[in-house]
Order: sequence, then structure tokens, then C-alpha cells
Amino acid sequence: MTLETLSVTRSFGGTVHVVRHDSRATGTPMTLSVFVPPQAESGAPCPVVWYLSGLTCTHANVTEKGEYRRACAELGLIFVAPDTSPRGESVPDDPAYDFGQGAGFYLDATEAPYDANYRMERYIVDELPEVVASAFPIDLARQAITGHSMGGHGALTLALRHPGRYRSVSAFAPIVAPSQVPWGEKALGAYLGPDRATWRRHDAVALIEDGARVPEILVDQGEADSFLARELRPELLEAACHGAGIALTLRMQPGYDHSYYFISTFMEDHLRWHATRLTA
Amino acid sequence: MTLETLSVTRSFGGTVHVVRHDSRATGTPMTLSVFVPPQAESGAPCPVVWYLSGLTCTHANVTEKGEYRRACAELGLIFVAPDTSPRGESVPDDPAYDFGQGAGFYLDATEAPYDANYRMERYIVDELPEVVASAFPIDLARQAITGHSMGGHGALTLALRHPGRYRSVSAFAPIVAPSQVPWGEKALGAYLGPDRATWRRHDAVALIEDGARVPEILVDQGEADSFLARELRPELLEAACHGAGIALTLRMQPGYDHSYYFISTFMEDHLRWHATRLTA
Repeated sequence: MTLETLSVTRSFGGTVHVVRHDSRATGTPMTLSVFVPPQAESGAPCPVVWYLSGLTCTHANVTEKGEYRRACAELGLIFVAPDTSPRGESVPDDPAYDFGQGAGFYLDATEAPYDANYRMERYIVDELPEVVASAFPIDLARQAITGHSMGGHGALTLALRHPGRYRSVSAFAPIVAPSQVPWGEKALGAYLGPDRATWRRHDAVALIEDGARVPEILVDQGEADSFLARELRPELLEAACHGAGIALTLRMQPGYDHSYYFISTFMEDHLRWHATRLTA
Repeated sequence: MTLETLSVTRSFGGTVHVVRHDSRATGTPMTLSVFVPPQAESGAPCPVVWYLSGLTCTHANVTEKGEYRRACAELGLIFVAPDTSPRGESVPDDPAYDFGQGAGFYLDATEAPYDANYRMERYIVDELPEVVASAFPIDLARQAITGHSMGGHGALTLALRHPGRYRSVSAFAPIVAPSQVPWGEKALGAYLGPDRATWRRHDAVALIEDGARVPEILVDQGEADSFLARELRPELLEAACHGAGIALTLRMQPGYDHSYYFISTFMEDHLRWHATRLTA
């Protein structure tokens, strides 16, 4: 496995690494950022937080605007931000912002022409931990996952689909029921085909309805988020968790929108919440 | 005075306003961001920190990457980030990144064709406080100034040239002696003409040598900053302050570069330093 280092930058007493590697899951080069806190510089294994970004984003958005390094440096968390899809001239794309490159939806596509590259679930769950562990001292027994919007969908569904893999899961303004909203219907239909039964395996609310479980979930959601009623619909997650006995902490935040001004405000809360569970 | 609101966004319990106005100083529209902390939402006057950005930047760079809102919300500071120059098709420009638009150097140009628009000193010192006070509850008796690189030069020279205006001044990786370094020689020569005696009035080290005083200065400087030896030269400020009895706190930070990864790391320290002096 070869990791190409694109940049190494000192920040908050730790180091931001931007690296690239050839992914066997996606068949493309994939770029990600890894924040290594001061506690890990001696090589001591540290817990890892996987942060999955939303539509149109690369690793760079949260790396520049997420304001996570101060808390990670304090708490001793390695923070990894992967890309949201395979990219490249040979990768099928779409002119819309909400489909194709930048919109992988953290699942393995089964439909042509997407099935050759859009394998983001196996990338995030299997390959990425191996890649990061080859160069950084992450403790694979202590993994947490979080994300924003489409990445919140990714965090919730991957935690539900891989029980025991992640000690804790949270999300910022997640797409909780992609089968029931326009962003999700478009993407799941194209990546997985018309059979909606297959969609349920990549839909947090449907997974819970069908028996998947995590012990608890933290979600922050801005009340002034312009996607709230149409695409996000946290009340559906609330109902599913209530029915399943999952301890959902859903915090509706008055006045907050869908941007990194919202995410950065509550990032520290999420990191502390994960750290408590990762070090228990 | 008319302020056009471009966006209003909730963040850290306060609000980020991006506004535009027609400037009489520059003869152009000028865009800036204003963070209003929760303490100011009742209209109670709050101290203000002016942040002057570096070469190539607009208000957006620090607004997105500066990580200042958490501390400002805690400390009750209004944080204002103006642009670095006049902009527009009618404004003289230069293809280089270090001159013309994005590189106003916080002085009033005297040479054609720059003298018509490049009047950033009067903009920052006179017009901007008036503009911001017309819409936000800033306490003009409690102003602090800081900045990065070219903006650090701006903060230092404006504080030295306007005694009593700013209660405190700090800088991140400032250009301390533009008369003696390539960035400054190019800009001061073009904006002020060939007489180097006029340059001394816009050069922090020369101003101090010529008798200007502030009580104290805080500077953070990364030791891995690629501009350190050629453009920044903090040892010249150290010598000038030593000779003048100015209490300079110069913190050389091992491993840090010139980027917002550096600035954001030490932003909170600067804001606490200013808050202590603004509320004394």
C-alpha cells in the first residue's frame, strides 16, 4: 500500500496530513486528510473519528472549516476526512450537484455504469481503516463515525450495517430516510436500481425498522436549515428510534442553517460525546 | 450610509453578517464580515476587534478558516474582517499576487493611478468604524486591531500611526519592515513613489525608530513559515521594540507555517489577550 503525502501542516500542536492513495475499492486515486493529535506523535495508538462529508464536498471542506482540531488535540482523537466519491475523467458523472462525483452516498453501487467505481461502503468500512492504519497510529478497537447531511446518512447507515464496528455514531443534519426524499430517491435509484427493497439496506430509518440496532445516536439539526422539511426529516429518525428503543439525542438548534457555520458550532460537542464513549 | 446585507448566518450562539457598502474612501463597493456575539444581540455595546487579512485574501478567508467565533462568543467581542483592497474592473490592478487588488497594504496611495482608489488607511481607520457602528453595537472606546502577514503590517502601522485609537495590537506573522523586504519595496514604491522617507511612515520598524509608540505588542510567528527570512524578519521588530522600550511578546512557534492552520491555532490566545485589555 502506497500513501502519497500531499501536505503536512502543523496545527493545534498536532499535524494535518493530506494524503492520496490508489483505491482498490473505487479503482481511482482517493485523497483524504488525517489530523494526528499531539498524543499520537509518540506513536501511541489513539482512537479514530471518521467524518463523512456531504454532497459536493471533498476532504477539504471540513478540514478547512470544521473547527475540529482544537478539541481533537485536547481529547487525543485522530480525525479522518475522506472524499465523498470516486473522481476522475473515467468515472461516470452527472452535471447535477446531487448525483455522481461528489455524491457517492456511502454505498456500493450495483447498477452500470456506476458499479465499477462507486463502492464507497467497502472503501470507508474496509479499505480506509487499513490505509490509515498503515501510516498513522489509529486504534482500530476504538472507532467512531460521524458526518454531515449525505455524510450523516453515511455515518448512520454504516454504523447500523456493521454492528460493533463503531463504538459511537453521531450526525449533523443527516439524510435519515433517503428512500423517502428527493436526494435519496435519485441516488439510490441510479446506484441500486428500481427495486426499493434494496434501498432499505441503505436507509437509516428503514434499517432500524427492519431490526438493525445501535445503542445510541447523537444528532444536531438546525431549525433554519433550508433542506430540513424536504430532504432531512429528522422526525422520521425520531419515530424509528422510539419504536426500536434506540437512545436518540436529537437537538433541534434554533436559527442554524445547513452550513459549516452550523457544523463548527457543534463539532466540539460531538467530539466530546465520542471521546467519552471511545475511552470508556 | 447604506449597508447591503449579503448573508446572515447563525454560528456559536452569535451571528455572522456579510455586508457590502459603497466606500467614499476607495470609491468602490467594499465587502466585509461582522461576527456579533450573543452578548451584543440585546444591543449592549461590545468591544471590537479589527482583523486585517494578508495578500490575496478577502474578508472570506478568516471568516471561513480563522476559528475565532467560539472565543469571541465567550468573550463578548465583535470581530470585523474587511477586504484587503478596493476591487473592481475600474480599479488599477496587477497580474502579480502581491500587488494591486488583494494587496492594498493598508495605506493611502499618493501615486497615480493608485491614488484614486487605494486609500485603505482612511478606509480602515475612519470609514469602517463609522460603517460598522451604523448597524452593529460596537463600543468605539474599546477597539483592538490584529492581522496576518500584510494585515499584521496593517495592524502594527495603524496602531503606531494613530496613538490611543486601539487599546491593543497584535499580529500573526506580520511584515514588520516593508521598506526592507521585497513585498514591501514593490508595494510602497508603487503606492508612495520613490522617496523612501515617505515609506518610513508605513513601516512598523521605521515608525518605532522614528518615535512612534504603543505600550505593548503580541506577535506569533511560525518557525517553518516559508516567508520568514525574506519577507517577515521579526528580529527587526524585536530590535526596534527593545530600543524603544515597547513590551513585545514575540512567540516563535516551532513547526508552524504561514497558513490559517497556524493562525487558527493561536487565534484564541490573541483574542484573550485583547479581551483582557479591552475590558480592563
